[in-house]
Amino acid sequence: MDKTPKNINLGKNVVIEKDVTIGENVTIGHNTVILRGTKIGNNVQIGANCVLGIKPLGNNQMRKADTYYNHLVIKDFVKIGNIVSIYLGTLIDKHVFIGDHASIRENVTVGENSVIGRASIIELNSKIGEKCTIQTLAYVTGDSILENNVFIGPCVSMSNDKYMGVHPYKLKGPHVKEGAKIGNNASLLPSVTIGEGTIVGAGAVVTKNLEKKQIVAGVPAKKIKDIQ
Amino acid sequence: MDKTPKNINLGKNVVIEKDVTIGENVTIGHNTVILRGTKIGNNVQIGANCVLGIKPLGNNQMRKADTYYNHLVIKDFVKIGNIVSIYLGTLIDKHVFIGDHASIRENVTVGENSVIGRASIIELNSKIGEKCTIQTLAYVTGDSILENNVFIGPCVSMSNDKYMGVHPYKLKGPHVKEGAKIGNNASLLPSVTIGEGTIVGAGAVVTKNLEKKQIVAGVPAKKIKDIQ
Amino acid sequence: MDKTPKNINLGKNVVIEKDVTIGENVTIGHNTVILRGTKIGNNVQIGANCVLGIKPLGNNQMRKADTYYNHLVIKDFVKIGNIVSIYLGTLIDKHVFIGDHASIRENVTVGENSVIGRASIIELNSKIGEKCTIQTLAYVTGDSILENNVFIGPCVSMSNDKYMGVHPYKLKGPHVKEGAKIGNNASLLPSVTIGEGTIVGAGAVVTKNLEKKQIVAGVPAKKIKDIQ
Repeated sequence: MDKTPKNINLGKNVVIEKDVTIGENVTIGHNTVILRGTKIGNNVQIGANCVLGIKPLGNNQMRKADTYYNHLVIKDFVKIGNIVSIYLGTLIDKHVFIGDHASIRENVTVGENSVIGRASIIELNSKIGEKCTIQTLAYVTGDSILENNVFIGPCVSMSNDKYMGVHPYKLKGPHVKEGAKIGNNASLLPSVTIGEGTIVGAGAVVTKNLEKKQIVAGVPAKKIKDIQ
Repeated sequence: MDKTPKNINLGKNVVIEKDVTIGENVTIGHNTVILRGTKIGNNVQIGANCVLGIKPLGNNQMRKADTYYNHLVIKDFVKIGNIVSIYLGTLIDKHVFIGDHASIRENVTVGENSVIGRASIIELNSKIGEKCTIQTLAYVTGDSILENNVFIGPCVSMSNDKYMGVHPYKLKGPHVKEGAKIGNNASLLPSVTIGEGTIVGAGAVVTKNLEKKQIVAGVPAKKIKDIQ
Repeated sequence: MDKTPKNINLGKNVVIEKDVTIGENVTIGHNTVILRGTKIGNNVQIGANCVLGIKPLGNNQMRKADTYYNHLVIKDFVKIGNIVSIYLGTLIDKHVFIGDHASIRENVTVGENSVIGRASIIELNSKIGEKCTIQTLAYVTGDSILENNVFIGPCVSMSNDKYMGVHPYKLKGPHVKEGAKIGNNASLLPSVTIGEGTIVGAGAVVTKNLEKKQIVAGVPAKKIKDIQ
């Protein structure tokens, strides 16, 4: 740690590597590991057995870094549960809540007041807006865009690789627009756009772009009605 | 720890906070954290890197507490794997088995001889009966009721929020009755009831209540036949 | 540890039990636990808060051991993320990459150059070939066979228990043949065979054996076309 923070509440066996900065009134649970280059704001709560600030391991296709690349930045009033892993190069904005067992990769931004659910996974290069809810065990693939006020139900699945590893292909995840809602266990295919305010039913498989303000369901997903 | 338990087999770097009680013949793996107010019975086995007795963080909608609210209670002969998280206010009854990476929230009861699978998640306020099997990566949402002898296949998904966070709405999870079986990766919508002994096929999406002793499948789930 | 390895890079609070062997140029992250009987090759990287070499707990139906049974064997150049759990009796071959939060049971083999994704689960007795990709949150059930060059998309689900715990029944997982690809969130039923090079669409539910070189989709999965 660069210098001793004010009012820190440190658990037992906590490991804090060098080049870490920690604000005031921070709680860090037992056995949590804060790796090199992590920047923690004020009034942050972190649970036990987390690993924060992970350096990517063996990823040769990694994109060019953005501003935050060399640091994990955790802003004020963030709450992080237990057994969570988060990578370097990611920004967790103010008042975000991250559930237990969640994992967030490098070069991700999570906007203010969003909730990253228990055991959900956010892959690299994804942008999550403000006031989003990502529910338990949901999977946000790499290179996804979730605008503000998006709701991703539990166990939702996304993919970003149209050719499943065969062709050389620019990976592109879904783009879920403002206020759209995805029901539990729905599947979104690579690069689909979900229009503003559109609702995708539970278990639906979205294979192509959806207009705004629709309700869709089924396999493959079809429009049931427009939202007035 | 309140007093030294008999025949305890403690791993390295184990953290045990105050107001914890531990019975006889208990094993606790390396780096496991037992938080304040946890009550562990006799002949309990706990793996490494677990966090037990977690206090809920930032949940303003939390319901009124039941009897167990201030404690996590783990009864005799329970076996808990590695990297597991369990909250305060929950009761794990005798001979329950909890797989690695599982997470169980507050105000849950798990009945005798039930199995909580690897990386499965049980959300708050849910009641799980006796001799139930919750398989790997299954998701039991909050406010669910699973009666005795229920089988939840791997990767099953449930939800409890009909309006996905929009309307003010009393959350209600599924009610799965005695002996019902849910196939792998099926989805149950908020508040559906699954009748006694009914079988839901793999990948089915259950959108409304199901009578007892049926076999259903598809999206949305439809009856295939009655069980004689 | 049997003897001090050359050029080991050990984190803080690492626990290494006896009868562990470690090769040259190995990195082990903070708070990781290496249990008795683990054999680690050269140039292996292991993240923080892992538990490796776990002895199965309370599994009475366990099969006869194979050669590796009493050890977890991790070969040269393997990379393991953070918060990973792996059991005894399993072989992780050269150049395998294992993502964070993954869990691999006993009596599994993972072939050279395969990738086991983040938070994916591989159950006991499964055989995974070379150059396979198992993506994030995918579930490979017990007694599965994945041949070489298989691609399992994110959140894919498999099962191996046709009668969901009722009948006495020999468990049998899917057999996915050389080069087959399974789309995200698809479900494979017990004992189905997926032919060489066949592609299963996202969200499909595979209820019976599939010939080679087909594209299938839907619930239940039906052939869309042959692959030329």
